[in-house]
Amino acid sequence: MKLATLRQNGTTVAARESGDNWIPIRGYADLGALLKEENWRALAEAADGDPVPAAGAELETVVPAPGKVVCVGLNYASHIKEMGRDLPAHPTLFAKYAETLTGPNDPVTAVAEDPELDWEGELVLVVGSEAYRVTEEEAADRIAGYSMANDISMRGWQFRTKEWLQGKMWARSTPVGPVMVTPDEFDHRKSELRTRVNGEVMQKHSTGDLVFPPEQLVSYISTMIPLKPGDIVLTGTPGGVGRARDPQVYLKAGDVVEVEIDGIGRMSSDIVEP
Amino acid sequence: MKLATLRQNGTTVAARESGDNWIPIRGYADLGALLKEENWRALAEAADGDPVPAAGAELETVVPAPGKVVCVGLNYASHIKEMGRDLPAHPTLFAKYAETLTGPNDPVTAVAEDPELDWEGELVLVVGSEAYRVTEEEAADRIAGYSMANDISMRGWQFRTKEWLQGKMWARSTPVGPVMVTPDEFDHRKSELRTRVNGEVMQKHSTGDLVFPPEQLVSYISTMIPLKPGDIVLTGTPGGVGRARDPQVYLKAGDVVEVEIDGIGRMSSDIVEP
Repeated sequence: MKLATLRQNGTTVAARESGDNWIPIRGYADLGALLKEENWRALAEAADGDPVPAAGAELETVVPAPGKVVCVGLNYASHIKEMGRDLPAHPTLFAKYAETLTGPNDPVTAVAEDPELDWEGELVLVVGSEAYRVTEEEAADRIAGYSMANDISMRGWQFRTKEWLQGKMWARSTPVGPVMVTPDEFDHRKSELRTRVNGEVMQKHSTGDLVFPPEQLVSYISTMIPLKPGDIVLTGTPGGVGRARDPQVYLKAGDVVEVEIDGIGRMSSDIVEP
Repeated sequence: MKLATLRQNGTTVAARESGDNWIPIRGYADLGALLKEENWRALAEAADGDPVPAAGAELETVVPAPGKVVCVGLNYASHIKEMGRDLPAHPTLFAKYAETLTGPNDPVTAVAEDPELDWEGELVLVVGSEAYRVTEEEAADRIAGYSMANDISMRGWQFRTKEWLQGKMWARSTPVGPVMVTPDEFDHRKSELRTRVNGEVMQKHSTGDLVFPPEQLVSYISTMIPLKPGDIVLTGTPGGVGRARDPQVYLKAGDVVEVEIDGIGRMSSDIVEP
């Protein structure tokens, strides 16, 4: 099952993919609201809104107002090596705010304050039920599904201080979507992520190579804090970011950056002037 | 004017201090809900709920579900020096999640996973109206008031990786309160913060010595993301934390840690067994 948050008539609605259409799940303003229902799968299956042709549909970020956005850094061996670090014993975690998220195909602004705008294609997990101090085995059942993000980073500000947050918290800079695929239809151990800039492949890596895979991340994070329905976890980016290239490459207005994960879909962001 | 969030009959309500009583501001479940009203000052002044004697009142964390909790590190010269760093050109920022907050006098659990539990008394600012790309002068008007926090930190996990978040995101580990004082009754340039452990003063410093004072922080953060009513900013801790002592001192079950800021009040947390 593929679920999403659809923009419609100036508001949003949760929706289920059915063939070439989206079927609105009436009564649920977005996927986050739906996931708060224990029987969200049944509700999604029983959706009976008027079908919306997928071709012309506009998608909102998959969970518009998650209670928590947890991000993982340095989680692919290839990216860890290109950033000049050793393989870690523990996941590196940082946070994002909900206002940082944006729709999967929305434009992203090249901010005037930092010319070092970089891409980070990532697999995202969406939490489906509360997880507090759960084992990895228990964690698997708490994952509602998978999506993807482009954790677009302002590298100048990211490295102004030791903490990365200020390179990662710009308004509407992180496209997430286009859909959430339930785990019965997506195996993160056997998929591939690709990031393209103006059509050129910049990142291409198996999502099976995560140092800390999704179930382990949920268990680890849940040691500290309860993960709740609609919370999302950005699982980290593989090698091939612009900063690590020689010479370095950064995004500028006019560029198009795409992220694609087999079995989830593709999203495309135009970089635009401030 | 002093405002707070009161626990009452299994729920919460925003309240205004009046002499020895709290006056519930009916219709507002907490201070965050009240601050979403443009005329929150007038609504607070007009409060007419049944007075609750302050002596027996139980206080919730001052804004229980802020959209954003922004934290500042290394913002007092004394603490920067004790952590072995140079004075910074830019504020160091990290995030917290709402579930990390707890009431000003609630117990805090000494987690089994990390014995290095440390205190960080901090001045907190509460945002009263939206601030996006505002100057320092404009920022002053967007601050609804001041509160305080104990950013209790699990130092072992904090330094597991380069990012501090995982030492700062444990459930119900950050007391915030007891009240929010409006700026007309509190001058952060002329107040003093004290942290005591079992009665012994561990931190004692003028809040006027912030490297980046509140108005500058609001302006800086607002360059990246809109600050919204009810968002809170923890402005950083002065010297005197347990980790920087020789020998190092950490909190353990049975300890009592207090934070006090002249003009705001005092809060006291019992450290308890898991």
